[in-house]
Amino acid sequence: MSDSVTVVLATRNAKKLPEMRAILAEAGLDADVVGLADYPDAPEVAETAATFSGNALLKARAIARHTGLPAVADDSGLRVDALNGMPGVLSARWSGRFGAESGDRDAANLDLVLDQLADTPEERRGAEFVAAAVLAAPHGAAPEPQEEVEEVVEGVMRGSLLRERRGGNGFGYDPIFVPDGEVRTTAEMSAEEKNAISHRGIAFRKLARRLGELL
Amino acid sequence: MSDSVTVVLATRNAKKLPEMRAILAEAGLDADVVGLADYPDAPEVAETAATFSGNALLKARAIARHTGLPAVADDSGLRVDALNGMPGVLSARWSGRFGAESGDRDAANLDLVLDQLADTPEERRGAEFVAAAVLAAPHGAAPEPQEEVEEVVEGVMRGSLLRERRGGNGFGYDPIFVPDGEVRTTAEMSAEEKNAISHRGIAFRKLARRLGELL
Repeated sequence: MSDSVTVVLATRNAKKLPEMRAILAEAGLDADVVGLADYPDAPEVAETAATFSGNALLKARAIARHTGLPAVADDSGLRVDALNGMPGVLSARWSGRFGAESGDRDAANLDLVLDQLADTPEERRGAEFVAAAVLAAPHGAAPEPQEEVEEVVEGVMRGSLLRERRGGNGFGYDPIFVPDGEVRTTAEMSAEEKNAISHRGIAFRKLARRLGELL
Repeated sequence: MSDSVTVVLATRNAKKLPEMRAILAEAGLDADVVGLADYPDAPEVAETAATFSGNALLKARAIARHTGLPAVADDSGLRVDALNGMPGVLSARWSGRFGAESGDRDAANLDLVLDQLADTPEERRGAEFVAAAVLAAPHGAAPEPQEEVEEVVEGVMRGSLLRERRGGNGFGYDPIFVPDGEVRTTAEMSAEEKNAISHRGIAFRKLARRLGELL
């Protein structure tokens, strides 16, 4: 038997598991990464906190409690300078009922941001993608309960917003986001190219380093 | 002939003139207030500035230049704490194309704010109405051009946002805004009651005092 630990990634999206496995391997960590597909009874966690890290904490704690295993969760979104940092934690539901009624929430959210920035000139169209990633490890078992472990890290990718979509990869606001120093949108990059510079990639690599120290 | 000056209020809404006249009279000022209905060729001014005072300045300057008379303009909106002060200068077009398509922009803007605050608990539903009012007086005539006069003042009304509409008066976000120390929304108040405490009333009374000193 090896010493490898099992970590639960608090997502139902199986596509996110290889990314996490690659990042942990890169960090030299011997860990098995499983998703919520293996825990069909895991609780649905409402993302009602006012911050990315607050939402990631809610999810990671709930899954660590449910599974008894170290759990990793993330929450991310877009902060637009000219909107005082909004949509932020509301990125996925920025267009409210209008997005829900339209049948394509991602498209409606992006269209709404474009409209809200219609009068914003190029030099004020800065924005950043932000991701918080959290590791929550449950209390140890007998003989004595250990202290609960919680690690919160953040990754940021600065850039600016176009006036029209470009590219078919990624999701959400990717088609209008050009990272600083790039000419392509993140929707014009491969998943590998994007992960190398993205807010999520940055946050997960930070967390992998902390995982190595803690587990 | 009296010494009374004529002031142009930069609005096409004739209903706003009596309010301004009452405020000037209250301030002991002998001024004639006219609106843009008397200046059909006055330029339409796009409100593209990033601040309320910036927009009011754009309008007041353009109208002072066009009419050769002292001009007063205002711009106002709602700052929502949980939206980092947005919609702010975007208050009238917050819902973008969705409001335009719906045929009732005010209703769509309000619905969108309600949706964006759906998960925001009572203690975090603070907001404020803000108005900037600007006086711009054109350069003096012969013998020597005087310096251009520009005065910028601001009025703020703090309150909090309900989860459902109440009241049929006012406009915009009034049906969900309850001023601090009140139990009614500003849509449940008469125009006089609202003007006595409102951001616009506060700003215009400040400006009336400055007008008295300057003109």
